[in-house]
Amino acid sequence: MTDRSSPYNQTDGEARGIAHKLLRDATTAALAVTEADTGAPFVSRIGFGLSPEGVPMTLISDLALHSRALRNDPRAALLIGEAGSRGDPLTHPRLTIRATARFVLRNEVDHHALRAAWLGTHPKATLYVDFADFHFVLFDIVSGHLNAGFAKAYALDQKDLTVR
Amino acid sequence: MTDRSSPYNQTDGEARGIAHKLLRDATTAALAVTEADTGAPFVSRIGFGLSPEGVPMTLISDLALHSRALRNDPRAALLIGEAGSRGDPLTHPRLTIRATARFVLRNEVDHHALRAAWLGTHPKATLYVDFADFHFVLFDIVSGHLNAGFAKAYALDQKDLTVR
Repeated sequence: MTDRSSPYNQTDGEARGIAHKLLRDATTAALAVTEADTGAPFVSRIGFGLSPEGVPMTLISDLALHSRALRNDPRAALLIGEAGSRGDPLTHPRLTIRATARFVLRNEVDHHALRAAWLGTHPKATLYVDFADFHFVLFDIVSGHLNAGFAKAYALDQKDLTVR
Repeated sequence: MTDRSSPYNQTDGEARGIAHKLLRDATTAALAVTEADTGAPFVSRIGFGLSPEGVPMTLISDLALHSRALRNDPRAALLIGEAGSRGDPLTHPRLTIRATARFVLRNEVDHHALRAAWLGTHPKATLYVDFADFHFVLFDIVSGHLNAGFAKAYALDQKDLTVR
């Protein structure tokens, strides 16, 4: 029986394994940020990948609303794990990461390695990766929330979400 | 040529048509809210549908983080439009709605009609729609942001997003 008074299950190796697989497999995410002028939440789709060190990352344009929001307030949340096309989409595992965004300058040492990693998983980004308004952003994980299906919620800490 | 100094195109009938189709077809969404204790953004997957009057709606549990966040601060953003499985997922149309959440009490006149509409598009919700901790939430639209593919962004107002 599930105790419906507490929404959380004990985080175990199985939950961590599901979270790591979602982090490794995802190529897109929904990014939530706080809009600078209103303080209200905003959400958009971004490309998603992992840096060579296993840190969640994206490649975004300075022209996009989410970039301006993150430069003003680096607190972010990312939802990964597609809904899938069969059955109840709310039974498909998905992971929310709470994170702090860190923009990577084009002349930083890391840029070249991030660029190579990104193009390995996002080959179509070749078209715009070198545009002057595009930057890599690393998301330093604060904590996470895994929903592995109905009544299967887990709270995860930074360590639980360390892929390597 | 696209003017890369302005990220927006002129909103026209085609853009509104894409937005309306996304609103009508979506059965899930990514919901962004502000967490009460930290003020940071949070994002999670929810079921999504339209009320008989065409207002975006969901069915969520009081046990979920997003419900507690919305009861504290009703400002929300919703991302609709799945990434799709072919090609660059960032070329698939998706719509962000800025909205204000309004919880519907079980004894309100609207509840019965919302329940019938929801079960028409979310038949698996029969399993939990009548649990005491589940409530319908209507999202009154403030404005929208349509991304219909690379360099095809549109700002939409409340009227642009009125489905009927």
